[in-house]
Amino acid sequence: MFTESQLTDDKFLCGRLRLWQPAQGYRAATDPVLLAAACPAVPGQSVLDLGCGAGAAVLCLGLRVPGLQLAGLELQPAYADLARRNAARNGVALEVVEGDLRQIPAVLRRDFDHVICNPPYYPAGGTPSPIAARATAMQVEAVPLALWLEVAARRLRPGGWLTMITGADALPELLGSLGKLGAAAVLPLAPREGRAAKRVILRARKGGRAPFRLLAPFVIHHGAAHDGDRESYTDAANSILRMGCDLSAQFS
Amino acid sequence: MFTESQLTDDKFLCGRLRLWQPAQGYRAATDPVLLAAACPAVPGQSVLDLGCGAGAAVLCLGLRVPGLQLAGLELQPAYADLARRNAARNGVALEVVEGDLRQIPAVLRRDFDHVICNPPYYPAGGTPSPIAARATAMQVEAVPLALWLEVAARRLRPGGWLTMITGADALPELLGSLGKLGAAAVLPLAPREGRAAKRVILRARKGGRAPFRLLAPFVIHHGAAHDGDRESYTDAANSILRMGCDLSAQFS
Repeated sequence: MFTESQLTDDKFLCGRLRLWQPAQGYRAATDPVLLAAACPAVPGQSVLDLGCGAGAAVLCLGLRVPGLQLAGLELQPAYADLARRNAARNGVALEVVEGDLRQIPAVLRRDFDHVICNPPYYPAGGTPSPIAARATAMQVEAVPLALWLEVAARRLRPGGWLTMITGADALPELLGSLGKLGAAAVLPLAPREGRAAKRVILRARKGGRAPFRLLAPFVIHHGAAHDGDRESYTDAANSILRMGCDLSAQFS
Repeated sequence: MFTESQLTDDKFLCGRLRLWQPAQGYRAATDPVLLAAACPAVPGQSVLDLGCGAGAAVLCLGLRVPGLQLAGLELQPAYADLARRNAARNGVALEVVEGDLRQIPAVLRRDFDHVICNPPYYPAGGTPSPIAARATAMQVEAVPLALWLEVAARRLRPGGWLTMITGADALPELLGSLGKLGAAAVLPLAPREGRAAKRVILRARKGGRAPFRLLAPFVIHHGAAHDGDRESYTDAANSILRMGCDLSAQFS
């Protein structure tokens, strides 16, 4: 488990969500907030976060959509413990289960309306971190994206939705491994207007038959380059990252 | 062969390219011009157009880049004949070979620096045309995209480039079938700003190892909707479709 001195207390969604996170190792930033914003869950539905870490994505979703049945699977006990503490702290009911997605614990072998995930991921050409927790969270080689998709599809009810965020350079692997997931749509996340996408959000439906769609990019920052410490989020990014709105308009 | 009365005389690139095309059946519009603009061929290199039709793409490329060795494979004799006539008419040297890409004629079993192709393609939910030539050109089921990619890769020298244009909804099939093609980049072609891509251009390199890139979209029309017959091309689209510029800046 992490000790207090190993943790930072971070604000998301303008402080509506407060998360304990390890000062070193995997730390949530904008990805889980965007992921949560892209999940089309409605009140009363069930959601499984595969690899929930300290709970950033699933808790953002729980704050935006009331009345969800939320569950998270997490490999590392220290992160699972944090996710439980973060859920309690923010008043969100969350079932956190420790386990490996290669062998889903029996308690999670049920159907969900939604699966969300933000698989650990090496940027192309990146090197493994020397920090153990991060190294575990980042061992993308150990669990290929194809397996994340397969496990997600198996946990979805027919017609249920997967929402996933990952690096744009993983798109060939991602789209080549959809399997039983159809009606897929990719939302490119571009750091700035006119730039290549760095990240993408994939939404796909178990058994879906609608054609694949490549959506217009969602642009995170305005301006042509980073401008020191000045706030540079686009209005659209602000509405997601600070106001906690959803991304459904982007997918319609 | 087509008779004169079955043909129209069409202008491309502000009239610098004149093409006989069948009045009915597959007719080139903007796709082959965009495809030609995206091919990174330089003078002295060899280019194979797989399924060259009446020659629109390969002849656009020949006009933009002087000193290329151009070849086209075409299944339908009547289109191959047109391609030969169109090449002669525009003063571009083009070797047109009749044959099926499932069994490449011996004369084309050599290495090329570039392969370009605009595979015939049913939009999702589309129905086969009653017109025979179009039906043949549109039999995408008969030759899956995976086979186009495989044949293209086989005809490329190591390090050679494939440039292909196809429907955005074919992206999962396309990216799932790259095989020996790497360093792939996808340029989304959006009809208007903020709209989903309808078409995509894929560029990939035989044996390439650079990470996949999802580029910023190339927007064809300005404004929010079609405005009667008024010219609505964006400046960027105009420079490609009328001025005959290349798309290399989009891929850099």
